[in-house]
Amino acid sequence: MTSVTDLYPVQSALAEVAREVEKKIDRLLPPVQGPEGRVIEAMRYGTLGGGKRIRPFLVVASADLFGVARTCSLRVAAAIEMVHSYSLIHDDLPCMDDDDLRRGQPTVHRKYDEATAVLAGDALLTFGFEVLSGEETHADPRVRLDLVSGLAMAVGSNGMVGGQMIDLQASGLNLDVQGITRLQHMKTGALLSYSAEAGAILGRAAQDKRLALKGYAQNLGLAFQIADDLLDIEGDEASMGKAIGKDAEAGKATLVGALGVERARLQAEMLIAQAIEHLETFGEQATLLRNIARFVINRST
Amino acid sequence: MTSVTDLYPVQSALAEVAREVEKKIDRLLPPVQGPEGRVIEAMRYGTLGGGKRIRPFLVVASADLFGVARTCSLRVAAAIEMVHSYSLIHDDLPCMDDDDLRRGQPTVHRKYDEATAVLAGDALLTFGFEVLSGEETHADPRVRLDLVSGLAMAVGSNGMVGGQMIDLQASGLNLDVQGITRLQHMKTGALLSYSAEAGAILGRAAQDKRLALKGYAQNLGLAFQIADDLLDIEGDEASMGKAIGKDAEAGKATLVGALGVERARLQAEMLIAQAIEHLETFGEQATLLRNIARFVINRST
Repeated sequence: MTSVTDLYPVQSALAEVAREVEKKIDRLLPPVQGPEGRVIEAMRYGTLGGGKRIRPFLVVASADLFGVARTCSLRVAAAIEMVHSYSLIHDDLPCMDDDDLRRGQPTVHRKYDEATAVLAGDALLTFGFEVLSGEETHADPRVRLDLVSGLAMAVGSNGMVGGQMIDLQASGLNLDVQGITRLQHMKTGALLSYSAEAGAILGRAAQDKRLALKGYAQNLGLAFQIADDLLDIEGDEASMGKAIGKDAEAGKATLVGALGVERARLQAEMLIAQAIEHLETFGEQATLLRNIARFVINRST
Repeated sequence: MTSVTDLYPVQSALAEVAREVEKKIDRLLPPVQGPEGRVIEAMRYGTLGGGKRIRPFLVVASADLFGVARTCSLRVAAAIEMVHSYSLIHDDLPCMDDDDLRRGQPTVHRKYDEATAVLAGDALLTFGFEVLSGEETHADPRVRLDLVSGLAMAVGSNGMVGGQMIDLQASGLNLDVQGITRLQHMKTGALLSYSAEAGAILGRAAQDKRLALKGYAQNLGLAFQIADDLLDIEGDEASMGKAIGKDAEAGKATLVGALGVERARLQAEMLIAQAIEHLETFGEQATLLRNIARFVINRST
């Protein structure tokens, strides 16, 4: 069992990375004059000022294992968080999940308008690739290319976008546990596991270490999703900063729905144990990654 | 003056590249089983089966100047055409230009639904980056990276997306000729000039040749836009395969609106002359690129 005190270092490490990545995004994406400034403003609104920044944390903590300079890992973390933000902005659109609130604030299409939200998402996705391909990301062009193609695969029709496509049809698909697991692996798992893998790519890690980190984050991603779904049922709207109970209402396919609360909770714990097992090869060095995994299923927001 | 007979080789060269790039896209993006297959289907619908394929033509004709293998240039051409298709799919959305027809067929959101159209656009944009970063594109990773970052800059908030953001606000902006020119450079010019530049990048061209091709395509892009706007006023709905007269109705900022038909036509001719001037350094070799430039302002669809 994890006591509350054990989680303090995780929370402060998360907060530190969140602060640093916020600064990095702010610098990479300064406001601009001119009529195109509106899309930059919406990009900044959609990606700055909140979020747990789990993906940036995974990039940085994983890169730390290989002694990668924080200037590099935070840049990659910022790129991935921008791409994550793109997915939230598009998922919140009226034609998708139709959400009015995100992190307690109006969603981008409510604050601006739908067209601006579509464009801000497009531009954040594009900018993610631009940042990764930039020289400051890493001196070795092969490393940058590896990051670019990894991101494309995590996002495209076999990753996040494909997952969202399945999710939108889920109420009519009658997915079994295997089908739901596949959906979650695509929708949430792909970008989370790429985040940890990106740290290994930056560190030019050996293949086995790279796969270990990827496997760790895949299990973590699924556990994270179960925890999210449990919070959607049991959480409280104010502390979550978004509407609660919407998933069940919308007939979304979740493991909690398929397994029931108790078995889903056990499944999440098992996944966390598996995630931690992947870290064995890193010994003591991976303590923070172990703790974040435990934190994921104990969080309340 | 260009006679009709001079245009025959251009039209057959265009048709040849269009056929080849169609085959390439079809191979890169095969239909898949499973519930995510819907997004692939919509991607295929939105990018196969039509279009003049001007961008692929620019890539291939420009790469031909440097003896680049067609397998490489067609791959890059396919990636760029997928990204162009993404922009059409998102621009056609109800919250943007709200178009029901494209190339004489229902737009993606009419054929499928809005959510699928948003996702298909996202996935095509992402897949463009994936294709460029793949090993088959070029053996040298620096060339691939150059292609990736060039595409990101042509698409992002300083390129196509920024241009669309301005365009959406244009009726309230009262743009002068300079403002409209800047808008067109971003919205249409950036991806067109990147297309010609991409051929030079693949050919590892010297900087002056790369800039010449980029300059050529920038002028061509602006002339192309004027020709499009003239067709929007004078063209006929059946042969254009889309609604006509919509731009003027929507209060869109066009050079034809700002300059009037006659001055706009003269301006387009001047731009074509400038475009052709950029090609001087290539001598006889660039005949096809010269002819396509003349074709652009003489076309009727």
